[in-house]
Amino acid sequence: MKLLPFPHHAHTAIQELINTQRCVIIIDKNITKCYHIPFDRENLLILPQGECAKSFTTVKKILKKITRSQFDRSCSLIGIGGGALCDTVGFTASIYMRGISAVYVPTTLLAQIDAAYGGKTAINFMGIKNLVGTFHNPHKIISDSAFIESQNTREYYSGLGEVLKYAIGFDSELFSTVKNNYESIIQRDTHVLDTIITTCTSIKDSIVKHDMYDAHVRKKLNLGHTFGHAYEQAIHLSHGHAVALGIVASSILSKNMGILPANDFFEIINCMKLYGFNTSLPRLTKKMKTLLIHDKKILNKTIDFIIIEKIGKTDIINLELTKVLELVYG
Amino acid sequence: MKLLPFPHHAHTAIQELINTQRCVIIIDKNITKCYHIPFDRENLLILPQGECAKSFTTVKKILKKITRSQFDRSCSLIGIGGGALCDTVGFTASIYMRGISAVYVPTTLLAQIDAAYGGKTAINFMGIKNLVGTFHNPHKIISDSAFIESQNTREYYSGLGEVLKYAIGFDSELFSTVKNNYESIIQRDTHVLDTIITTCTSIKDSIVKHDMYDAHVRKKLNLGHTFGHAYEQAIHLSHGHAVALGIVASSILSKNMGILPANDFFEIINCMKLYGFNTSLPRLTKKMKTLLIHDKKILNKTIDFIIIEKIGKTDIINLELTKVLELVYG
Repeated sequence: MKLLPFPHHAHTAIQELINTQRCVIIIDKNITKCYHIPFDRENLLILPQGECAKSFTTVKKILKKITRSQFDRSCSLIGIGGGALCDTVGFTASIYMRGISAVYVPTTLLAQIDAAYGGKTAINFMGIKNLVGTFHNPHKIISDSAFIESQNTREYYSGLGEVLKYAIGFDSELFSTVKNNYESIIQRDTHVLDTIITTCTSIKDSIVKHDMYDAHVRKKLNLGHTFGHAYEQAIHLSHGHAVALGIVASSILSKNMGILPANDFFEIINCMKLYGFNTSLPRLTKKMKTLLIHDKKILNKTIDFIIIEKIGKTDIINLELTKVLELVYG
Repeated sequence: MKLLPFPHHAHTAIQELINTQRCVIIIDKNITKCYHIPFDRENLLILPQGECAKSFTTVKKILKKITRSQFDRSCSLIGIGGGALCDTVGFTASIYMRGISAVYVPTTLLAQIDAAYGGKTAINFMGIKNLVGTFHNPHKIISDSAFIESQNTREYYSGLGEVLKYAIGFDSELFSTVKNNYESIIQRDTHVLDTIITTCTSIKDSIVKHDMYDAHVRKKLNLGHTFGHAYEQAIHLSHGHAVALGIVASSILSKNMGILPANDFFEIINCMKLYGFNTSLPRLTKKMKTLLIHDKKILNKTIDFIIIEKIGKTDIINLELTKVLELVYG
C-alpha cells in the first residue's frame, strides 16, 4: 500500500518542537503503516496498536529508551496515536524524574474529542482497565483532523460513541446536530466534524477546569462508562461501542427510576440506531460482574452512578452496585 | 533472638487506622525479625530491607495484593520501615486508581527526620536511584522513636549523616547541638534525639511548604546529594555516609570558589570527624561520572548545585557539571 504523506499541520507543529528541545516520539504502529514518517528513526519508538500497549511492559520500554538517551527534565515525550497510546505516554512522562512534558498528537476521533484531554493518564493492570495511572496534564495537544480520514470504520464509530455521550449527557444542541447530520457525519464531512470536535473538547475543558481530580462534577463524564468498561473488556467491544451500550444501560436505569421521560429515552435509542449502534444490552456475565466490582468509582460497595435527567442533562446519584444491576437488568 | 514488643505508640496509632478503614500493611522484613507483629497476617506484605525493594517488581507485587483484596479509593496502604520502603509504598499508592492514601511508619532515624516527609515518592530504575517517582503527600506519618533503639549502627549513622545536612546547611543552632552533644547522640539519648528529629522535620516542612515541586528553594535540601547519590550507588555506602561525603565535596567546592570561609570549612570537617565520618573523598570513577550525568537535577549539562555560604546557610548556583568536577576534584 502506498504511504500517505504525514498530515501537514501535525508535521509542522511536531517539527517545531523537535527543533527547540530533545524529544522522543512514541508512535502507534498503525500510523507507520498508513503514513510516511518524516522524523528521525533514532528518536522514534513504535508501539503496537490499542489497549495491549497500556502495560507496565510498555512503560518500562519507553523508560529504558529515554534513560539510555540521557533524558533530563527539560526533554519531552511526544505520543502520536490513539487514546491508549496517549494514556501510556502520559503515564510514563508523569513518573520519569517525577514528571516531564508530554505532548499528544491524537490520531483518532475518540482521542481528539476526549482521550487526549483532561490530564488523566493510565495503564491496565491484571486485566482491569485504567487501574493504574496518574493526573498529569499534557504540555500541548496537536490535533489534525486529516488523521481521521484514514481511520478504519470500527475505530471511527468508536469515536462516535463518545460523541453521543457528550450530546446525550451535556448538550441538547449537539444532540440535534448529531441527529440531523448523521449522513454527513457518517461520510466524515470535515466541516461538521470540526464543529463536533470543538464542541466536545470545550464541554470537557469547562468540566475539568472546575474539577481536575474527579471529586464531583467531573464524575459526570463517566456517563455510560460503568457498564461501558465492563462490556469493553468482557466482550471485547471498541471503547465507543461499549460506551454507547453503557449509555443505553444508564437510560434504562434513569427511565426505571422515573427520572428520564419516555420521549427522551426513545429519542436516545433512535439516534443510536441511526448510526447503526446496537441498543440491546448484552447478557450480564460473571466476568462483567467482577469487572464492575473492581470499578475505580466503587466506594464501600456503592457507586456514584451517572443518570440522565433529560437529553443534555445528567446527574450523579449514589447507589449500591446491587441496586444498579437490579434497575438495569431487572 | 527474643522478639521485642511492637513499639506502643505506633501500635496504638496503626490499630486506630485499621479499625476505621481497610488497610494493607507493607512491612520491612527486618522489623519482623526484631519485633512481635501484632497485626493480622492476611493484610500484611513483607518486603526485603533496603534499596532492593525500590523496583517495579515490588510495586507490582503490592499492586497485585491490593487488587486481589478489591481495594477501592477509600483504602490505605500503611508502610512500616525505612526510607526505601516508604518511597516504594508512597509511589504505589500514588499510581493505584490515580492515588490512594499512604500512611508511613518510619522506623529509622533517616526516615523519621527526612525520607518520610515532603511528599516525594520513588523507585530506582536501570541502576539509577529515584529515577522514577511521583509527588504524593502521605495522609499521615506515625513516628515512634522506640524503633531507633533497635537500629543497627550503620543505619543509625546513616541517619546522622542527614542530620549533619540540616545542621550544616540550614541551622547553626542545630549545628552547635550536634557538635556539643555528640556523646549523648552517639548513645542514642532519646531526649536529645527527640529535639533533633523535631528540628529537622520542621526545617523540611517550612521549605517544602514554599516549594512542593522542587522549583526553587526546595533544591537546597539536595545539599550533599549530587555527589552523595553517585557515591551511594558506585561504592555502596549507606545513604547518610554518602551524603556526609557529598557535603565534604560541596564544602570543598564552596571553599575553592572563595565563598565558604576556611574557619567554617574546618568546623564542618571536625564535626564530621567527631562522629567518625570519613572526610576523604573517594577516587572519582567512570561509574560515578555516568551516575552524575544521569542526575535528575541536570538540565542541559548544567546543574543547580548547592553550595555552603557559611554554617547554617546554603545557596543555589548553576554550574556546568564539568566545572563542578574541576572545582571538587581539581
